Amino acid sequence: IKVKKYQYGNRGMTLEDDINESNKYYLSNKIAVIHKKPTPIQIVQVDYPERSKAVIKEAYFKTPSTTDYNGVYRGKYLDFEAKETKSETSLPLKNFHEHQIRHTEAVLACGGIAFVIIRFSKTEEVFLLEGEHLLKFWQRMESGGRKSIAKDEIMQYGHYIPLGIQPRIDYIRLIESLYY
Amino acid sequence: IKVKKYQYGNRGMTLEDDINESNKYYLSNKIAVIHKKPTPIQIVQVDYPERSKAVIKEAYFKTPSTTDYNGVYRGKYLDFEAKETKSETSLPLKNFHEHQIRHTEAVLACGGIAFVIIRFSKTEEVFLLEGEHLLKFWQRMESGGRKSIAKDEIMQYGHYIPLGIQPRIDYIRLIESLYY
Ligand SMILES: [Mg+2]
Ligand SMILES: [Mg+2]
Repeated sequence: IKVKKYQYGNRGMTLEDDINESNKYYLSNKIAVIHKKPTPIQIVQVDYPERSKAVIKEAYFKTPSTTDYNGVYRGKYLDFEAKETKSETSLPLKNFHEHQIRHTEAVLACGGIAFVIIRFSKTEEVFLLEGEHLLKFWQRMESGGRKSIAKDEIMQYGHYIPLGIQPRIDYIRLIESLYY
Repeated sequence: IKVKKYQYGNRGMTLEDDINESNKYYLSNKIAVIHKKPTPIQIVQVDYPERSKAVIKEAYFKTPSTTDYNGVYRGKYLDFEAKETKSETSLPLKNFHEHQIRHTEAVLACGGIAFVIIRFSKTEEVFLLEGEHLLKFWQRMESGGRKSIAKDEIMQYGHYIPLGIQPRIDYIRLIESLYY
Protein backbone atom coordinates (compact mmCIF):
# COMPACT_ATOMS: atom_id res chain seq x y z
CA ILE A 1 0.00 0.00 0.00
CA LYS A 2 2.86 2.31 0.78
CA VAL A 3 4.23 1.68 -2.68
CA LYS A 4 0.91 2.55 -4.29
CA LYS A 5 0.70 5.78 -2.36
CA TYR A 6 4.13 6.70 -3.60
CA GLN A 7 3.55 5.72 -7.18
CA TYR A 8 0.19 7.33 -7.79
CA GLY A 9 -1.04 10.85 -7.41
CA ASN A 10 0.73 14.14 -7.24
CA ARG A 11 4.18 13.62 -5.84
CA GLY A 12 5.24 17.16 -6.64
CA MET A 13 7.12 15.92 -9.67
CA THR A 14 7.17 18.12 -12.71
CA LEU A 15 6.18 16.87 -16.13
CA GLU A 16 9.87 16.84 -17.05
CA ASP A 17 10.70 14.69 -14.02
CA ASP A 18 8.10 12.17 -15.11
CA ILE A 19 9.31 12.16 -18.70
CA ASN A 20 12.93 11.82 -17.62
CA GLU A 21 11.98 8.87 -15.45
CA SER A 22 10.07 7.29 -18.32
CA ASN A 23 13.08 7.80 -20.59
CA LYS A 24 15.32 6.00 -18.08
CA TYR A 25 12.91 3.09 -18.17
CA TYR A 26 12.93 3.04 -21.99
CA LEU A 27 16.72 3.22 -22.05
CA SER A 28 17.37 0.47 -19.52
CA ASN A 29 14.88 -1.79 -21.29
CA LYS A 30 16.37 -0.99 -24.72
CA ILE A 31 13.01 0.28 -25.94
CA ALA A 32 14.05 3.79 -26.95
CA VAL A 33 16.94 6.22 -26.47
CA ILE A 34 15.50 9.64 -25.67
CA HIS A 35 17.38 12.38 -23.85
CA LYS A 36 16.60 15.88 -22.72
CA LYS A 37 18.88 18.38 -24.36
CA PRO A 38 21.07 20.40 -22.03
CA THR A 39 20.26 24.11 -21.80
CA PRO A 40 22.72 25.96 -24.01
CA ILE A 41 25.02 28.28 -22.09
CA GLN A 42 27.26 31.08 -23.34
CA ILE A 43 30.44 30.79 -21.31
CA VAL A 44 32.39 34.00 -20.78
CA GLN A 45 34.91 33.24 -18.05
CA VAL A 46 36.36 30.01 -16.71
CA ASP A 47 38.82 29.62 -13.85
CA TYR A 48 41.18 26.66 -13.58
CA PRO A 49 42.10 26.39 -9.92
CA GLU A 50 45.09 24.15 -9.22
CA ARG A 51 44.31 20.53 -8.46
CA SER A 52 40.58 21.02 -8.91
CA LYS A 53 38.26 21.16 -11.82
CA ALA A 54 37.42 24.11 -14.00
CA VAL A 55 34.93 26.58 -12.54
CA ILE A 56 32.71 28.65 -14.79
CA LYS A 57 32.64 32.13 -13.24
CA GLU A 58 30.57 34.01 -15.79
CA ALA A 59 28.05 32.60 -18.21
CA TYR A 60 24.63 33.35 -19.67
CA PHE A 61 21.63 31.32 -20.74
CA LYS A 62 21.18 31.15 -24.49
CA THR A 63 17.88 30.61 -26.27
CA PRO A 64 17.72 26.98 -27.38
CA SER A 65 17.33 26.50 -31.14
CA THR A 66 15.46 23.23 -30.79
CA THR A 67 12.94 21.47 -28.57
CA ASP A 68 13.39 19.75 -25.18
CA TYR A 69 13.77 16.10 -26.14
CA ASN A 70 14.85 13.95 -29.03
CA GLY A 71 15.98 10.44 -29.75
CA VAL A 72 15.25 7.16 -31.46
CA TYR A 73 12.51 4.55 -31.32
CA ARG A 74 12.57 1.62 -33.76
CA GLY A 75 14.89 3.51 -36.07
CA LYS A 76 12.73 6.60 -36.36
CA TYR A 77 13.56 10.06 -35.13
CA LEU A 78 11.37 11.41 -32.32
CA ASP A 79 11.36 15.05 -31.23
CA PHE A 80 9.16 16.76 -28.68
CA GLU A 81 8.49 19.58 -26.27
CA ALA A 82 7.07 19.14 -22.79
CA LYS A 83 4.60 21.83 -21.73
CA GLU A 84 2.82 22.12 -18.43
CA THR A 85 0.02 24.59 -17.75
CA LYS A 86 -1.92 25.64 -14.67
CA SER A 87 -4.83 26.67 -16.84
CA GLU A 88 -7.73 24.22 -16.72
CA THR A 89 -9.18 25.21 -20.06
CA SER A 90 -6.36 25.79 -22.54
CA LEU A 91 -2.65 25.75 -23.34
CA PRO A 92 -1.51 29.32 -24.03
CA LEU A 93 0.64 29.46 -27.17
CA LYS A 94 2.99 31.93 -25.50
CA ASN A 95 4.43 28.76 -23.95
CA PHE A 96 6.12 28.16 -27.30
CA HIS A 97 8.99 30.07 -28.83
CA GLU A 98 9.04 30.84 -32.52
CA HIS A 99 12.23 28.74 -32.91
CA GLN A 100 10.49 25.68 -31.45
CA ILE A 101 7.76 26.03 -34.06
CA ARG A 102 10.34 26.43 -36.86
CA HIS A 103 12.23 23.40 -35.54
CA THR A 104 9.02 21.34 -35.49
CA GLU A 105 8.35 22.31 -39.11
CA ALA A 106 11.89 21.33 -40.12
CA VAL A 107 11.69 17.96 -38.35
CA LEU A 108 8.37 17.12 -40.00
CA ALA A 109 9.73 18.19 -43.40
CA CYS A 110 12.56 15.66 -42.93
CA GLY A 111 10.19 12.83 -42.01
CA GLY A 112 10.71 12.94 -38.26
CA ILE A 113 7.99 12.39 -35.67
CA ALA A 114 7.35 15.65 -33.79
CA PHE A 115 4.88 16.25 -31.00
CA VAL A 116 4.15 18.00 -27.71
CA ILE A 117 3.44 16.35 -24.40
CA ILE A 118 1.03 18.58 -22.47
CA ARG A 119 0.12 18.33 -18.81
CA PHE A 120 -2.76 20.14 -17.18
CA SER A 121 -1.20 20.33 -13.77
CA LYS A 122 -4.42 20.88 -11.78
CA THR A 123 -5.93 17.61 -12.96
CA GLU A 124 -2.64 15.83 -13.81
CA GLU A 125 -4.06 14.92 -17.20
CA VAL A 126 -1.44 14.32 -19.87
CA PHE A 127 -1.97 14.51 -23.64
CA LEU A 128 0.16 14.03 -26.71
CA LEU A 129 -0.51 16.45 -29.56
CA GLU A 130 1.15 15.74 -32.88
CA GLY A 131 3.33 18.44 -34.45
CA GLU A 132 1.07 18.84 -37.46
CA HIS A 133 -1.76 20.02 -35.19
CA LEU A 134 0.49 22.30 -33.19
CA LEU A 135 1.50 24.01 -36.43
CA LYS A 136 -2.16 24.49 -37.40
CA PHE A 137 -3.00 26.10 -34.07
CA TRP A 138 0.07 28.31 -34.32
CA GLN A 139 -0.98 29.38 -37.80
CA ARG A 140 -4.48 30.15 -36.57
CA MET A 141 -2.94 32.53 -34.04
CA GLU A 142 -0.77 34.14 -36.70
CA SER A 143 -3.89 34.68 -38.81
CA GLY A 144 -5.43 36.62 -35.94
CA GLY A 145 -7.17 33.70 -34.19
CA ARG A 146 -7.04 32.67 -30.56
CA LYS A 147 -3.69 32.70 -28.75
CA SER A 148 -4.15 29.33 -27.10
CA ILE A 149 -5.21 25.78 -27.81
CA ALA A 150 -8.47 24.97 -26.04
CA LYS A 151 -8.39 21.88 -23.85
CA ASP A 152 -11.36 20.63 -25.87
CA GLU A 153 -9.23 20.84 -29.00
CA ILE A 154 -6.37 19.02 -27.33
CA MET A 155 -8.83 16.28 -26.33
CA GLN A 156 -10.22 16.18 -29.86
CA TYR A 157 -7.01 16.26 -31.92
CA GLY A 158 -4.56 14.94 -29.36
CA HIS A 159 -4.33 11.70 -27.43
CA TYR A 160 -4.82 11.16 -23.74
CA ILE A 161 -1.97 9.33 -22.00
CA PRO A 162 -3.14 7.56 -18.83
CA LEU A 163 -0.59 7.75 -16.00
CA GLY A 164 1.19 4.51 -15.32
CA ILE A 165 3.60 3.16 -12.78
CA GLN A 166 6.55 2.30 -14.95
CA PRO A 167 6.93 4.13 -17.17
CA ARG A 168 4.84 6.86 -15.63
CA ILE A 169 4.09 8.53 -18.98
CA ASP A 170 4.14 5.82 -21.61
CA TYR A 171 4.23 8.05 -24.69
CA ILE A 172 6.19 5.46 -26.68
CA ARG A 173 3.26 3.04 -26.56
CA LEU A 174 1.10 5.76 -28.10
CA ILE A 175 3.74 6.61 -30.73
CA GLU A 176 3.91 2.91 -31.57
CA SER A 177 0.18 2.77 -32.25
CA LEU A 178 0.15 6.02 -34.21
CA TYR A 179 3.21 5.62 -36.45
CA TYR A 180 4.20 1.98 -36.76
CA ILE B 1 40.44 32.17 -57.61
CA LYS B 2 40.15 34.00 -54.31
CA VAL B 3 37.02 32.05 -53.55
CA LYS B 4 38.76 28.78 -54.28
CA LYS B 5 41.63 29.67 -51.98
CA TYR B 6 39.14 30.37 -49.22
CA GLN B 7 37.04 27.32 -49.79
CA TYR B 8 39.73 24.71 -50.12
CA GLY B 9 42.61 23.76 -47.91
CA ASN B 10 43.22 24.32 -44.27
CA ARG B 11 41.41 27.42 -43.15
CA GLY B 12 42.10 26.73 -39.52
CA MET B 13 38.58 25.46 -39.07
CA THR B 14 38.04 22.56 -36.75
CA LEU B 15 36.20 19.43 -37.78
CA GLU B 16 33.26 20.62 -35.69
CA ASP B 17 33.21 23.98 -37.50
CA ASP B 18 33.02 22.16 -40.83
CA ILE B 19 30.28 19.83 -39.60
CA ASN B 20 28.29 22.71 -38.11
CA GLU B 21 28.54 24.55 -41.42
CA SER B 22 27.41 21.44 -43.30
CA ASN B 23 24.49 21.06 -40.90
CA LYS B 24 23.42 24.65 -41.59
CA TYR B 25 23.41 23.84 -45.28
CA TYR B 26 21.32 20.70 -44.70
CA LEU B 27 18.86 22.62 -42.51
CA SER B 28 18.36 25.56 -44.84
CA ASN B 29 17.87 23.19 -47.78
CA LYS B 30 15.46 20.99 -45.78
CA ILE B 31 17.70 17.97 -46.31
CA ALA B 32 18.30 17.03 -42.69
CA VAL B 33 17.95 18.51 -39.20
CA ILE B 34 21.13 17.79 -37.27
CA HIS B 35 22.31 19.78 -34.26
CA LYS B 36 25.28 19.67 -31.97
CA LYS B 37 24.21 19.05 -28.41
CA PRO B 38 25.09 21.77 -25.91
CA THR B 39 27.71 20.84 -23.31
CA PRO B 40 25.86 19.95 -20.11
CA ILE B 41 26.59 22.33 -17.26
CA GLN B 42 25.92 21.95 -13.54
CA ILE B 43 24.74 25.35 -12.40
CA VAL B 44 25.43 26.22 -8.75
CA GLN B 45 24.83 29.95 -8.45
CA VAL B 46 22.90 32.43 -10.57
CA ASP B 47 22.61 36.19 -10.02
CA TYR B 48 19.64 38.18 -11.24
CA PRO B 49 20.84 41.77 -11.55
CA GLU B 50 18.06 44.32 -11.91
CA ARG B 51 17.10 45.23 -15.44
CA SER B 52 19.58 42.82 -16.98
CA LYS B 53 19.62 39.14 -17.67
CA ALA B 54 20.56 36.34 -15.31
CA VAL B 55 24.29 35.79 -14.81
CA ILE B 56 25.62 32.36 -13.95
CA LYS B 57 28.32 32.96 -11.32
CA GLU B 58 29.31 29.40 -10.47
CA ALA B 59 28.94 26.33 -12.64
CA TYR B 60 30.82 23.18 -13.62
CA PHE B 61 31.18 21.09 -16.75
CA LYS B 62 29.36 17.77 -16.57
CA THR B 63 30.29 14.66 -18.52
CA PRO B 64 27.89 14.34 -21.43
CA SER B 65 25.89 11.10 -21.45
CA THR B 66 25.59 11.02 -25.21
CA THR B 67 27.50 11.85 -28.39
CA ASP B 68 28.12 15.20 -30.09
CA TYR B 69 25.44 15.29 -32.75
CA ASN B 70 22.03 13.87 -33.51
CA GLY B 71 19.05 14.50 -35.72
CA VAL B 72 16.88 13.31 -38.55
CA TYR B 73 17.38 12.47 -42.21
CA ARG B 74 14.48 11.02 -44.21
CA GLY B 75 12.72 9.98 -41.04
CA LYS B 76 15.62 8.01 -39.60
CA TYR B 77 17.55 8.85 -36.46
CA LEU B 78 21.21 9.77 -36.97
CA ASP B 79 23.72 9.99 -34.13
CA PHE B 80 27.44 10.64 -34.28
CA GLU B 81 30.65 11.75 -32.69
CA ALA B 82 33.24 13.97 -34.37
CA LYS B 83 36.86 13.04 -33.63
CA GLU B 84 39.96 14.78 -34.86
CA THR B 85 43.46 13.41 -34.41
CA LYS B 86 46.93 14.75 -35.06
CA SER B 87 48.25 11.22 -35.43
CA GLU B 88 48.93 10.24 -39.04
CA THR B 89 48.60 6.53 -38.48
CA SER B 90 45.72 5.84 -36.08
CA LEU B 91 42.84 7.15 -34.01
CA PRO B 92 43.59 6.52 -30.32
CA LEU B 93 40.56 5.04 -28.56
CA LYS B 94 41.20 7.21 -25.52
CA ASN B 95 39.42 9.85 -27.62
CA PHE B 96 36.20 8.07 -26.69
CA HIS B 97 34.51 7.95 -23.33
CA GLU B 98 32.89 4.80 -22.08
CA HIS B 99 29.47 6.53 -22.04
CA GLN B 100 29.80 7.40 -25.75
CA ILE B 101 30.36 3.72 -26.50
CA ARG B 102 27.37 2.69 -24.36
CA HIS B 103 25.25 5.33 -26.05
CA THR B 104 26.30 4.07 -29.50
CA GLU B 105 25.30 0.54 -28.50
CA ALA B 106 21.93 1.74 -27.24
CA VAL B 107 21.23 3.73 -30.42
CA LEU B 108 22.08 0.75 -32.63
CA ALA B 109 19.93 -1.54 -30.48
CA CYS B 110 16.97 0.80 -31.14
CA GLY B 111 17.53 0.84 -34.90
CA GLY B 112 19.27 4.21 -35.14
CA ILE B 113 22.16 5.02 -37.44
CA ALA B 114 25.31 5.64 -35.39
CA PHE B 115 28.75 6.55 -36.66
CA VAL B 116 31.92 8.56 -36.10
CA ILE B 117 33.29 11.23 -38.39
CA ILE B 118 37.08 11.15 -38.11
CA ARG B 119 39.52 13.75 -39.39
CA PHE B 120 43.25 13.24 -39.67
CA SER B 121 44.17 16.86 -39.22
CA LYS B 122 47.64 16.69 -40.81
CA THR B 123 46.28 15.51 -44.15
CA GLU B 124 42.74 16.87 -43.73
CA GLU B 125 41.34 13.49 -44.71
CA VAL B 126 37.86 12.77 -43.38
CA PHE B 127 36.30 9.34 -42.91
CA LEU B 128 32.98 8.01 -41.69
CA LEU B 129 33.18 4.85 -39.60
CA GLU B 130 29.93 3.09 -38.77
CA GLY B 131 29.08 2.46 -35.13
CA GLU B 132 29.16 -1.32 -35.53
CA HIS B 133 32.87 -1.13 -36.44
CA LEU B 134 33.65 1.30 -33.63
CA LEU B 135 32.15 -1.19 -31.17
CA LYS B 136 34.29 -4.00 -32.59
CA PHE B 137 37.49 -1.99 -32.21
CA TRP B 138 36.49 -0.99 -28.70
CA GLN B 139 35.86 -4.61 -27.82
CA ARG B 140 39.24 -5.57 -29.27
CA MET B 141 40.85 -3.10 -26.87
CA GLU B 142 38.84 -4.45 -23.95
CA SER B 143 40.04 -7.95 -24.82
CA GLY B 144 43.61 -6.76 -24.50
CA GLY B 145 44.16 -5.69 -28.12
CA ARG B 146 45.48 -2.41 -29.49
CA LYS B 147 44.28 0.83 -27.94
CA SER B 148 43.68 2.58 -31.23
CA ILE B 149 42.13 2.10 -34.64
CA ALA B 150 44.80 1.99 -37.35
CA LYS B 151 44.29 4.42 -40.20
CA ASP B 152 44.51 1.41 -42.51
CA GLU B 153 41.55 -0.11 -40.72
CA ILE B 154 39.59 3.13 -40.95
CA MET B 155 40.31 3.18 -44.71
CA GLN B 156 39.27 -0.48 -44.98
CA TYR B 157 36.09 -0.52 -42.87
CA GLY B 158 35.17 3.15 -43.05
CA HIS B 159 34.33 5.46 -45.93
CA TYR B 160 36.36 8.37 -47.21
CA ILE B 161 34.44 11.65 -47.47
CA PRO B 162 35.98 13.98 -50.06
CA LEU B 163 35.93 17.63 -49.00
CA GLY B 164 33.40 19.73 -50.84
CA ILE B 165 32.48 23.37 -51.09
CA GLN B 166 28.93 23.29 -49.85
CA PRO B 167 28.43 21.31 -47.76
CA ARG B 168 32.08 20.97 -46.88
CA ILE B 169 31.65 17.50 -45.36
CA ASP B 170 28.77 15.84 -47.17
CA TYR B 171 28.23 12.93 -44.80
CA ILE B 172 24.50 12.81 -45.57
CA ARG B 173 25.23 11.81 -49.17
CA LEU B 174 27.26 8.89 -47.83
CA ILE B 175 24.55 7.94 -45.31
CA GLU B 176 22.04 8.01 -48.14
CA SER B 177 24.06 5.51 -50.15
CA LEU B 178 24.75 3.27 -47.16
CA TYR B 179 21.31 3.10 -45.50
CA TYR B 180 18.55 4.03 -47.95
MG1 LIG C 1 9.45 22.53 -22.19
MG1 LIG D 1 33.80 15.09 -30.39
